[in-house]
Amino acid sequence: MSYSASVQELIDQLGRLPGIGPKSAQRVAFHLLKIPTEEALKLADSIVEAKQRVSFCTRCFNLSEGGEECVVCSDPRRESRMLCVVEDSQDIVAIERTQEFRGRYHVLQGAFSPIDGIGVEQLRIKELMTRVGEEDVDEVIIATNPNLEGEATASLLVKFLKPMGIKVSRIASGLPVGGDLEYADELTLGRALDGRKTLTDGEN
Amino acid sequence: MSYSASVQELIDQLGRLPGIGPKSAQRVAFHLLKIPTEEALKLADSIVEAKQRVSFCTRCFNLSEGGEECVVCSDPRRESRMLCVVEDSQDIVAIERTQEFRGRYHVLQGAFSPIDGIGVEQLRIKELMTRVGEEDVDEVIIATNPNLEGEATASLLVKFLKPMGIKVSRIASGLPVGGDLEYADELTLGRALDGRKTLTDGEN
Repeated sequence: MSYSASVQELIDQLGRLPGIGPKSAQRVAFHLLKIPTEEALKLADSIVEAKQRVSFCTRCFNLSEGGEECVVCSDPRRESRMLCVVEDSQDIVAIERTQEFRGRYHVLQGAFSPIDGIGVEQLRIKELMTRVGEEDVDEVIIATNPNLEGEATASLLVKFLKPMGIKVSRIASGLPVGGDLEYADELTLGRALDGRKTLTDGEN
Repeated sequence: MSYSASVQELIDQLGRLPGIGPKSAQRVAFHLLKIPTEEALKLADSIVEAKQRVSFCTRCFNLSEGGEECVVCSDPRRESRMLCVVEDSQDIVAIERTQEFRGRYHVLQGAFSPIDGIGVEQLRIKELMTRVGEEDVDEVIIATNPNLEGEATASLLVKFLKPMGIKVSRIASGLPVGGDLEYADELTLGRALDGRKTLTDGEN
């Protein structure tokens, strides 16, 4: 006995989601079959609803609900001279939570990873160049992830942006606040040493 | 900035699935928003379809598609004198894969765990008793998981079934085939010692 067609289809569809392996897909499928129908349909409805209502901002490619431009781009109080480049929309939410940044964003929708078929063409780099050319941008802050793909993307962006004569910066790598030197990996600790700041009396 | 209403709803619904924490829910939600609409709707459709077509077998509570009784119960070649009791339908698929069992099943739809609100009433024990009384059952094989809840369920079932004068057995615990003594936990190794078999010449 194997699973019936519609159960197998459900397992297959769930297994295509990121981070959900065959075993989890099976577990989630059986969970959905076990719970009341209305509960399970809430999930199905939320997928349909989100796909209908959410699109990408035509300017920065952040998620946008019910409009052409996202909440950040359509907010006139945001400074246009600072542009923060991120890999995905969820990174914007993380940065917004810090309340440290009042500029605008640009979402690349991925990171440079030729092995996964993600090259320059797949990222929103051309659109970034156009924005930097047209908008009043002084500084581009590259906030891609501090991993292999994110660093490769950062190097790539520097190569494209530097000739345009604007300031290009990269967010700092180092020990997380509250972290412990003892448990830091050598790469992070190396970065923390590299990026050390001179301390002076009164200010640092 | 936080997520818009329909994105948050999608994240919330995904976060209710077993084994999917808030971070994974977010990742899956953004994945669904990024992929083509038709791809995302396939998942929604497969949930709706499965909930419409799949129900529980009226006899053994296994999953059943398009009928009152499941494929095992409606197969006249299956022996009715052996009844294998499992926690969930996916356990049936695992046992069927061994091709070692030709009897029928009974799905409890869970394991005894009062702390999670799962008592005797929540499990299909009453229905099991009725089946043992009405059907021509010689032996009940208890194949609940070899963990705390599964063992508690097994003890409970023995208490209910023994007075009915049938043979009640429990699947063996021990080292997995291909396993390594060195890496076995002490409970498993203890069980393996407990359940040792006498070897004789010619047969074991």
